Amino acid sequence: MSAVTPSASYSLTVRLSITNRPGMLGRVAMAIGEAGGDIGAVDLVESTRDRIVRDITINARDSNHGQQIVAQLKKTSGVRVVNISDRTFLMHLGGKIEVQSKVPIRTRDDLSMAYTPGVARVCLAIREDRQRAFSLTMKHNTVAVVTDGTAVLGLGDIGPEAALPVMEGKAMLFKQFGGVDAMPICLATKDVDKIVETVKYLAPGFGGVNLEDIAAPRCFEVEERLRKDLDIPVFHDDQHGTAVVVLAALLNALRIVKKSLRSLRVVVTGVGAAGTATIKILQSSGVRDIIGVDEHGTIHRGRATGMDFMKRWVASTTNPRQVKGGLAEATQKADVFIGLSVPGILSVRDVKRMARDPIVFAMANPVPEIQPEDAGKHVRVMATGRSDYPNQINNVLCFPGFFRGLLDSRARTVNDEMKVAAARALAGCVARSELSEEYIIPSVFNKTVAPAVAEGVARAAWDTGAARRRRRFDVGVVQ
Amino acid sequence: MSAVTPSASYSLTVRLSITNRPGMLGRVAMAIGEAGGDIGAVDLVESTRDRIVRDITINARDSNHGQQIVAQLKKTSGVRVVNISDRTFLMHLGGKIEVQSKVPIRTRDDLSMAYTPGVARVCLAIREDRQRAFSLTMKHNTVAVVTDGTAVLGLGDIGPEAALPVMEGKAMLFKQFGGVDAMPICLATKDVDKIVETVKYLAPGFGGVNLEDIAAPRCFEVEERLRKDLDIPVFHDDQHGTAVVVLAALLNALRIVKKSLRSLRVVVTGVGAAGTATIKILQSSGVRDIIGVDEHGTIHRGRATGMDFMKRWVASTTNPRQVKGGLAEATQKADVFIGLSVPGILSVRDVKRMARDPIVFAMANPVPEIQPEDAGKHVRVMATGRSDYPNQINNVLCFPGFFRGLLDSRARTVNDEMKVAAARALAGCVARSELSEEYIIPSVFNKTVAPAVAEGVARAAWDTGAARRRRRFDVGVVQ
Repeated sequence: MSAVTPSASYSLTVRLSITNRPGMLGRVAMAIGEAGGDIGAVDLVESTRDRIVRDITINARDSNHGQQIVAQLKKTSGVRVVNISDRTFLMHLGGKIEVQSKVPIRTRDDLSMAYTPGVARVCLAIREDRQRAFSLTMKHNTVAVVTDGTAVLGLGDIGPEAALPVMEGKAMLFKQFGGVDAMPICLATKDVDKIVETVKYLAPGFGGVNLEDIAAPRCFEVEERLRKDLDIPVFHDDQHGTAVVVLAALLNALRIVKKSLRSLRVVVTGVGAAGTATIKILQSSGVRDIIGVDEHGTIHRGRATGMDFMKRWVASTTNPRQVKGGLAEATQKADVFIGLSVPGILSVRDVKRMARDPIVFAMANPVPEIQPEDAGKHVRVMATGRSDYPNQINNVLCFPGFFRGLLDSRARTVNDEMKVAAARALAGCVARSELSEEYIIPSVFNKTVAPAVAEGVARAAWDTGAARRRRRFDVGVVQ
Repeated sequence: MSAVTPSASYSLTVRLSITNRPGMLGRVAMAIGEAGGDIGAVDLVESTRDRIVRDITINARDSNHGQQIVAQLKKTSGVRVVNISDRTFLMHLGGKIEVQSKVPIRTRDDLSMAYTPGVARVCLAIREDRQRAFSLTMKHNTVAVVTDGTAVLGLGDIGPEAALPVMEGKAMLFKQFGGVDAMPICLATKDVDKIVETVKYLAPGFGGVNLEDIAAPRCFEVEERLRKDLDIPVFHDDQHGTAVVVLAALLNALRIVKKSLRSLRVVVTGVGAAGTATIKILQSSGVRDIIGVDEHGTIHRGRATGMDFMKRWVASTTNPRQVKGGLAEATQKADVFIGLSVPGILSVRDVKRMARDPIVFAMANPVPEIQPEDAGKHVRVMATGRSDYPNQINNVLCFPGFFRGLLDSRARTVNDEMKVAAARALAGCVARSELSEEYIIPSVFNKTVAPAVAEGVARAAWDTGAARRRRRFDVGVVQ
């Protein structure tokens, strides 16, 4: 496996006091470069006759690497390290999101309209008809981002407090890309009944629920029960967000290799939340030959080890050829490999066993199932979860627009039609003329993505009878 | 009882198309005035040779009155009513608060620090030490505003959706006056066990809990159990916010009449959430002779009707002279009347029975226990809950600063010392030189109030060992 490259996520700002002599900045840059650091901004803080103080921002591979770079600087003569700050931690100080008023309260008149006594009339209007909460409160645009902290990123069960920075980051992305107000709700319970009950009690103030980083297989039951009991949409992003983006990438990859969904052989490794949802969306889209593979090998009807209710469902509905064994058997003549599992499990030999023009989505994070450098010429289309290779499969491409569409249509629920519509809309953001092996999925900063996904979802909501309105504001309900 | 005066809370903007002829605006103004409306802004929308279109903002007493004014305008010749909009409803369209990012995500570098992969290091730092959530997440500044919608304003049990506009208004005030990020949580359950459990599960993401508009006596149990189980402060504003502001007003009123807390006779009408908390804070401050009065009369040890666990507690700890009967008996030689009950129950005759220099706080809303015009010369110091008379007793004077102080000190709990400190700080915002019968409590827009209350609370937190830090940010915990 190749080394991870330096990135801003491990980025330090180092304040150096440097002897004021020609050539010294070069010496500093050399020291950083020798230690493998990437230099970003170089700012001048202070300059005297004897010394120059500079802030230098350096991208490193990880914390240890950052320390090595600092050690190298400390050894450099004429250089004194005054201060080291970790930019990621600095960005998190005090939290990343806040609650703001949409209208200022400057006068007694403002106060008497936004709060007592004027607000009482608004309350009474909603008491008469609860649906008015959609137009007269924050509900129409607010999503609860709910986690129990049991499957956070690749870190596992780190607890609700430690999950909060991820949920805040999610809320930032919801706002930035979808204009959605998202509130992190980190629960101090892992009990399915308690999670379901808590979210049901919270629901009146929210227009939707985004479940996040809840471990499989509990996540399936939590989502299913909430979907049944609530009249607002519930969406487990780890499942469906991933599935939508994978399907979008696959649709475009198939255009390149000129294959159809119905004839594909697909291998999915990792049969947790994301893997199961990916299997389901592929089935909804017409794929018939899917093999799920986990740490115990292929999932088939006869398998007894490592099964849970969801894997039994997978066994009952996939693997039509009942392939037994491991990845080597599963990849035989496969058209598509979808990795949602662990680093490095796909070998070049496996790839060579695949059918012509292999499509490989290796999304284990931060290190993929196979490095793009190793897969190299053996694959036709390659995608990963990383931003430093082409074709990054990132949930950010889905959830902001998806919820925008749910909220705009006041959808009662989430259904398969919406997910497929979202995937098609996302795939459509790459024009036929732009499409290539290295560009099957748009950038997360592509501004056309969220509106396109939102429109696809809202239209599907309307077509399937899940929508409660067509337009943005039903001003008519206000008397 | 006097009529309620027009206010912005019932304010209409009426678009009129008026014949373009001298004297017409005067005729319009006359029609509005005859109907009892107050004219605010008059805007010109369009002017042609024949007609002038104007938007006129009119304050009315209530919805019916607004309709009467419009009817009067419709009868005015040369005037056509084009459109009527209710400014309070307009202000609520789409909700009053939103979630915002504190840092923008513009580039991949921003994304990799605020979200994956950089955020993982922040998560791990919190997993190592949960207390770091205070410095590295929104927790340190975020309060859950929790209601079950059972005692909203004077409207009673209107349900969680209908309570949301009040909670949003509260969140606006939290931000505007205290810089606190407050999130409305409107619960779809009235069960004490379920409310307690739900709030406990939510708690990891919050630095404090503001309970709001939960009916007595359930509110006492909810608060007490949450206080025991959580390591963040829990504050039922209807109880303690009111009590703090009442005590502050009383402290200043006593300076005017030159009486001391220990020698006072106080009557409290309404022995629900606010009344009980007011009794408690007065006791904590040294008042010894308090009589509680509810719809069944004075509360005393021998009373059997209309008792619950909290009223039994009140019976056991107040009314040292065991006064029986009603308000007439209770007000005999009383120094202070504190009304937290219903309109019009205090008669002039009752006031005349009081001791010299009567202090009357008549806080029933919107119509007080006795109108200031009626109490008139018989009282020395009068306060109400209304903004259109002097001395408005308003919780907004307490909760933003109170929570600012709790959050700044990272208080583990709320205690009586903090409440008394908040009241003293609030009273201190009226300088001795400014103090008068008509100015015992500062305006809600007085900018010195929240910082003063916050400092009082934070200091009390520190003095009582409830604080977890002295200063605003413990940057030191970040590696």
